[in-house]
Amino acid sequence: MPLPAELHRELAALLGEGSGWLTDPGERLAYAYDNSRREAVPDAVALPVSRAQVQALVRACFAHRVPVVARGRGTNTTGASVPVQGGVVVSFERMDRIVEVRPGDRCAVVEPGVLNGDLQAALQAHDLFWPPDPTSAAFSTIGGNLACNAGGPRAVKYGASRDNVLALVAVTGTGELIHCGSATTKGATGYDLQRLLVGSEGTLALIVEATLRLTPLPPQRRAVRALYSDVASAAQAVARLMAQPVTPSMLEFMDADCVRLARDVGGADLPPDAGALLMIEADGDAQTLPHAVEALLRAAGGDGLVALDDAADDAAREQLWAARKALSPALRTLAPGKINEDVVVPVSRIPQLVDGVRALAQEFALPIVSFGHAGNGNLHVNILFDPADAAQAERAHAALARVFALTLQLGGTLSGEHGIGLAKREFMPHAIDPPTLTLMRGIKAVFDPAGILNPGKLLPRRDPPSTRSEHPGA
Amino acid sequence: MPLPAELHRELAALLGEGSGWLTDPGERLAYAYDNSRREAVPDAVALPVSRAQVQALVRACFAHRVPVVARGRGTNTTGASVPVQGGVVVSFERMDRIVEVRPGDRCAVVEPGVLNGDLQAALQAHDLFWPPDPTSAAFSTIGGNLACNAGGPRAVKYGASRDNVLALVAVTGTGELIHCGSATTKGATGYDLQRLLVGSEGTLALIVEATLRLTPLPPQRRAVRALYSDVASAAQAVARLMAQPVTPSMLEFMDADCVRLARDVGGADLPPDAGALLMIEADGDAQTLPHAVEALLRAAGGDGLVALDDAADDAAREQLWAARKALSPALRTLAPGKINEDVVVPVSRIPQLVDGVRALAQEFALPIVSFGHAGNGNLHVNILFDPADAAQAERAHAALARVFALTLQLGGTLSGEHGIGLAKREFMPHAIDPPTLTLMRGIKAVFDPAGILNPGKLLPRRDPPSTRSEHPGA
Repeated sequence: MPLPAELHRELAALLGEGSGWLTDPGERLAYAYDNSRREAVPDAVALPVSRAQVQALVRACFAHRVPVVARGRGTNTTGASVPVQGGVVVSFERMDRIVEVRPGDRCAVVEPGVLNGDLQAALQAHDLFWPPDPTSAAFSTIGGNLACNAGGPRAVKYGASRDNVLALVAVTGTGELIHCGSATTKGATGYDLQRLLVGSEGTLALIVEATLRLTPLPPQRRAVRALYSDVASAAQAVARLMAQPVTPSMLEFMDADCVRLARDVGGADLPPDAGALLMIEADGDAQTLPHAVEALLRAAGGDGLVALDDAADDAAREQLWAARKALSPALRTLAPGKINEDVVVPVSRIPQLVDGVRALAQEFALPIVSFGHAGNGNLHVNILFDPADAAQAERAHAALARVFALTLQLGGTLSGEHGIGLAKREFMPHAIDPPTLTLMRGIKAVFDPAGILNPGKLLPRRDPPSTRSEHPGA
Repeated sequence: MPLPAELHRELAALLGEGSGWLTDPGERLAYAYDNSRREAVPDAVALPVSRAQVQALVRACFAHRVPVVARGRGTNTTGASVPVQGGVVVSFERMDRIVEVRPGDRCAVVEPGVLNGDLQAALQAHDLFWPPDPTSAAFSTIGGNLACNAGGPRAVKYGASRDNVLALVAVTGTGELIHCGSATTKGATGYDLQRLLVGSEGTLALIVEATLRLTPLPPQRRAVRALYSDVASAAQAVARLMAQPVTPSMLEFMDADCVRLARDVGGADLPPDAGALLMIEADGDAQTLPHAVEALLRAAGGDGLVALDDAADDAAREQLWAARKALSPALRTLAPGKINEDVVVPVSRIPQLVDGVRALAQEFALPIVSFGHAGNGNLHVNILFDPADAAQAERAHAALARVFALTLQLGGTLSGEHGIGLAKREFMPHAIDPPTLTLMRGIKAVFDPAGILNPGKLLPRRDPPSTRSEHPGA
């Protein structure tokens, strides 16, 4: 379905044909996909340079009932930026200014297209940082980070995107400009709309400016690697680490399969009796850091501990992280395809999750490995399979449904930091009860009465195909 | 307007006449007011014991279009729990169970009627605490704390109520039970409704259960008192304190008038050249705390410092806090009435706020003093006057409007931790622009289509009387 000719003329005039308004098929193709490997070519791509342009283009699309899909750099893994119903992709690559860094107020004002990594570099001069550190940080945008509530390893101490935003300026589905929050760390003035917009995946409004909460950069960090005989012992250590006052700045976990892969395939130096691994980091200054590390070493010790290594310097720290870094390439040797989910459970339920996932791997005869952000109970469960083998692919998707069912049974939820997008929308009715889902639809309609903002994402279809029989336990 | 007879019969049968359903005028009077000194007698008081009772009573009130006003212990200062349109006050005093403390997950599940102080006492056995610490903590409820996004001094390090809630179960204005969030510190599964409900003052839903995020209790704390020649020097110290990695666990401020009052009226031991005071606390363990205090002492030093005292033990700490504690009784000697607001500005703008307030005190010929949570830019501006003197009372209210206008001009907002309630609703159009306010009204209608939940609070009247001429600068 091509765009209405009148809309095309209006937006070409507004944004500039061939510069801010792209309709060439080759150019549109570059905005068709994201890191989910899903793909749908938009009817046009808009590259606005100002909030006024964003408002004008959304108003025009609202008048013509044409979909508007906001896009950062397409690093998300859920299909959230794939324009499945066509329409206009709005890429914020030309709205990439750091408007202001205000060290005295511990905040920065940015346009949505700023790269996370570029912001961090600019903040370093002020000895500040913005906590969210997704793996994609070097090439993902602040707008994208906010859209999916991106986290990363540092979230265990410093929170995810939602915890680190003070105010947003955004454009709703009718083209209205709204101002949510203020550049203050406290606020009790009406409804908190800025945290509602974070994680809404472009379905409620397009963020055109964000005031981010910053944190002073600790001058030093130190890593500890703890190996345990089994997952249960490692999980107990996680609980001990999280129950004492020194919160680690990272607390990453690898299950037995991951440890084996990192050793046997990735060549990491790990003893054969290690059945689980924790990478623990602390940050602070020269005076306090040694004491913080001591506290973490004490908490890491206990039943099932096989080895405990404390990196004295940066080189040793890199060495300890080598096992974790060897994992991702090693995973690729197991199978050409993987489903990488980011379920989250209460921390105390990590052992049940890992055990349950291991049982599913047996039941479905597929390798499934778990690693990730243990301090938040946020594990990346990777189901490995060969996409060319239809039976394997089917088993992988059946196993995925069971992973979600298990997570929900354990009091967790579908996603900790990737979001829902296309990939998980049909699982939403398993996670969110009908009255709450109805409220979410109602809120969507308030922000976007014509349903033009990122249609087909986050919220499930109104009459989802019955999936109960496919997903027992859900 | 008495309640419809049918509704009365239904709710008396549901809740128990004279036990869970009170209609005696004397009993109703006890639920008519809050700490704002405003008063309106409800038509009945409901004391439910279960979420099922809350659902049934809201459904019945919805059917009859009768107002429902949730109430903790009425400690709020904004009139938010005063039933100005009559109807049913729902007091949660019989839903006061601590359902579960889960140390391994750093969370507690509670009913809304639990007192903040009782929860803290129960958590102490687990070496945990819930950060919000309003002055009223001993006798205010968790439900009330959540309703107004209560903060307190510790918020500078640990956040306010909204930052410390993981999940909520609530009853909407149609009597639907909704489940928002999960007992996990990360979540990217649909819209974040739990943080939207926090601070909504009972206008969107009635919270019937909360899963609170807990923090390990630091075993020790130490206080530093810093005196400065003037407010600007103190404010620069606040900026320095907040820019280094050791975040104080409290950072309280008193302006020159407060220092003078605490000394001359309260008898506090303060030198005559002190024009501003900071109380700074750090917490931690025996190993790290001395270094943290050193870092704070370093940051507190600088231009304009008059004296710096570091309390070596608990007795000395109490001594240092004495000046702050002498303030409130001393204030009462100045005038019988006060308007105590809790405006919040970006930290770097504290000097402009304090200077501006001092100018307003002169202009309106009334004592106005400022003190409060400097690390959050959240100052309690107290306008002192004699309510029996009509001219003074009028000047006080005119000055108040100008304090709000000044705060907004400085990029701040109306309330940091008290909320809006009745007291500030007509100032909302100055703080929130029309499209954003329209969205807030839309969200209210989604949760509460009949407008029965705490009507007349938080959102301004649809056609507010023009206040522009009264509040120049707004």
